[in-house]
Amino acid sequence: MRRVELRRAAAFLCALAIAAAASAQSPALSSWNDGEAKTRILDFVRAVTDPKGKDFVAPADRIAVFDNDGTLWAEQPLYFQALFMLDQVKAAAPKHPEWKDNPAFKALVAQDKAAIEKMGMKPVLELLAQANSGMTVAEYDATIRNWLATARHPKYQRPYTELTYLPMRELLDYLRANGFSTFIVSGGSVEFMRPWAEKAYGIPPEQVIGSQMEVKFEMKDGKPVLTREAKIAFVDDGPGKPVGIYRHIGKRPILAFGNSDGDFQMLQVTTAGEGRRLGLIVHHDDAAREYAYDRQSHIGKLDKALDAAPANHWIVVSMKSDWKKVFAFDK
Amino acid sequence: MRRVELRRAAAFLCALAIAAAASAQSPALSSWNDGEAKTRILDFVRAVTDPKGKDFVAPADRIAVFDNDGTLWAEQPLYFQALFMLDQVKAAAPKHPEWKDNPAFKALVAQDKAAIEKMGMKPVLELLAQANSGMTVAEYDATIRNWLATARHPKYQRPYTELTYLPMRELLDYLRANGFSTFIVSGGSVEFMRPWAEKAYGIPPEQVIGSQMEVKFEMKDGKPVLTREAKIAFVDDGPGKPVGIYRHIGKRPILAFGNSDGDFQMLQVTTAGEGRRLGLIVHHDDAAREYAYDRQSHIGKLDKALDAAPANHWIVVSMKSDWKKVFAFDK
Repeated sequence: MRRVELRRAAAFLCALAIAAAASAQSPALSSWNDGEAKTRILDFVRAVTDPKGKDFVAPADRIAVFDNDGTLWAEQPLYFQALFMLDQVKAAAPKHPEWKDNPAFKALVAQDKAAIEKMGMKPVLELLAQANSGMTVAEYDATIRNWLATARHPKYQRPYTELTYLPMRELLDYLRANGFSTFIVSGGSVEFMRPWAEKAYGIPPEQVIGSQMEVKFEMKDGKPVLTREAKIAFVDDGPGKPVGIYRHIGKRPILAFGNSDGDFQMLQVTTAGEGRRLGLIVHHDDAAREYAYDRQSHIGKLDKALDAAPANHWIVVSMKSDWKKVFAFDK
Repeated sequence: MRRVELRRAAAFLCALAIAAAASAQSPALSSWNDGEAKTRILDFVRAVTDPKGKDFVAPADRIAVFDNDGTLWAEQPLYFQALFMLDQVKAAAPKHPEWKDNPAFKALVAQDKAAIEKMGMKPVLELLAQANSGMTVAEYDATIRNWLATARHPKYQRPYTELTYLPMRELLDYLRANGFSTFIVSGGSVEFMRPWAEKAYGIPPEQVIGSQMEVKFEMKDGKPVLTREAKIAFVDDGPGKPVGIYRHIGKRPILAFGNSDGDFQMLQVTTAGEGRRLGLIVHHDDAAREYAYDRQSHIGKLDKALDAAPANHWIVVSMKSDWKKVFAFDK
C-alpha cells in the first residue's frame, strides 16, 4: 500500500473509531432534562457535523470555548482561586512579621468586610500579589496541588474539584466525541486550572486560556527556572476574552458557553461569525442545589448578557429546570 | 458493547491507524544524510515511544517546539516578516502625506543603511508599527495572505512559503506520526505565521506561539472586532520563549529545535528537564544552496548557543552535510 493510501486508511479507521465512541455515548447529555436547551444543543451539533448539510463545519474549525468559574464549576461564596490566594496570605504570614501592622492583612485575617470596603481593594490585591509571587512556577504548582487536595468548600464540605457541573462535563465529552476541540477561556489564571482541568474536564493544559501573571526566566543554582512576579500581564475577562482567544487559538469559535457579564464579549464574537453558531449562558437559579444569583451578585454578575440573550438567540440554561443533577454527588 | 469497552476499542483502532501511518513513512527522514544527527534523532524517538523502555514518554507529554525563522524556513537577507512590514510602509504612504518629511521614511524608501544606522532603530520601528496597526485583525490577515501570494524572495525569485526546509518538514511529519505534538515558538508574530503554517508544516493556528501586538476589542458598525494597536504586548524571543511556552503549552517540551541565540533559553529549559530530552540547532553553513552565517550575523546570530552546544549535548545540524536537499525545489 502506498503512503498516501495508508494515511487515508488510517484517517478512515480513526473516523470509524471516533464515531463508534460517539454513538456509544447514547443517550447523549443524560443529566440534561428534555427541553429547549438540550434540543437546541443536539440540533446544533447534528447540523455542524452533517457532511451533507449546509451548516457543516470541518472538525479543525469546531472550536468550543467555555468560561470556567460559574460555568464549569461553582464560584460562590467567592472564586475558588481567591480563596486559595487568601490561604497563601495566611501561610506566608510567619515569614512576613511586618504584615502584623498592615491594615489589609489585619482586615483579611479578621474577615472584616467593613474595613476592606473602607480601604478599597488596592491594598488587599497588593498583599495577595505579594503572597502569591516570588517562587518558581514549579513551587507554586506544588502549592496549588496541595491546596486542592486538602481544602474543603465551606458549604459542601467537599474538595473544590468535586464542584464541577456534571451536565457540563457531559457536554464537553459529547462535543469532543463529535470532533470539537474544547477550550477553557477563564478570568482565572492558567496555573490554577491546569493541574486539575485535564482530569476534571478532559481539557489538557495547552487548551486552558486564562489571566496571566508576569513570569521571568532566570538561572538559579545553575538551572533555568521561571519565577512569578507580583505583576499582572494579561486579564482574560470581559473584552480580554476575545483577545485571549485570538492570541491562543487564532480561530473564531463556533460555540461559546459562559455565565456572567465577563463572558459577554466572548459570546458576541462567537455568535457574530458567519455560518451556524451557538451561544449559551448558565443561569444560576437553583438556591436548593447550588446558588441563585444574577444581576445583583458581586461574583459572577449576570446583567447585560442576560438582557442581550434573546436578541442574540443565546440559550439561557436554567440550572434548576434544565439539569437533572448539578453535581455528580447529587442524588 | 459497553461504553468503556467501546472507548477502549476506539483508542486501540486509533493507535493501530497511527502506527500504520508511521510505518508507512519508512524510510523516515529521507532528505537527511546518514550521520550522527539523523541517528540521534531516530534513537531519541525510538526511546521515548517504546512503551517497555525506561525512557518512555506518554503521547500527551511528547511536546516538540520549533523556532521558525532560520529553523523551519529561511531568514536572509532579512526576516521575511520585516520585509512584509516594510512593504506595508510603502503601501500606506499615499494615506500619509506627512511621511514625506519623516527622515525614517525617506531612509527606508531609499534603502539608505547609513542614514538608518545614524538615526537608530527607534524611528524606524515607530514607522513600521504605525503602518502595521489601526486595522482589524481580519483586514491585516487579508493583507498578509495577499503579500504571501504575490511577493518574491530577492535571491530565489520564489514565494516565501516555498523557502521552508524540506528536511524539517519531514522531521515534523515524522514526530507527529510518532505521537508528538509540534509547536512553533517564534520571535515572529503569530498573525504572520498562522495563515500558512498549517499548509506548510501541518501546524494548526493554535499551536503557533509568537510575539504579540496589543489588540483591542471594540464594536464597529454594530459588529465586534479586534483592532491592532501600535504597541508590543509580548516578545517571544530569547528569555521570552520559555515564558511563551509556559503560558501557552504549560508543559516542558522534550524536544527543542532552534538556530540562533534567540533559542538559547528555550533549548536550556527543554534539555534541563528530567528524563530523555533532545536539543538541536540548525547551523547555516551552506552558502551554495542557502546562506552561511553564525557568530557575526545581524540576523539569526548563533554564538552563545553554539558554544554551549557540546556541554549540553545539543546536536548541531550542518545544513551542508546533514541535508540532502535544503528546499523541496533543490535538484
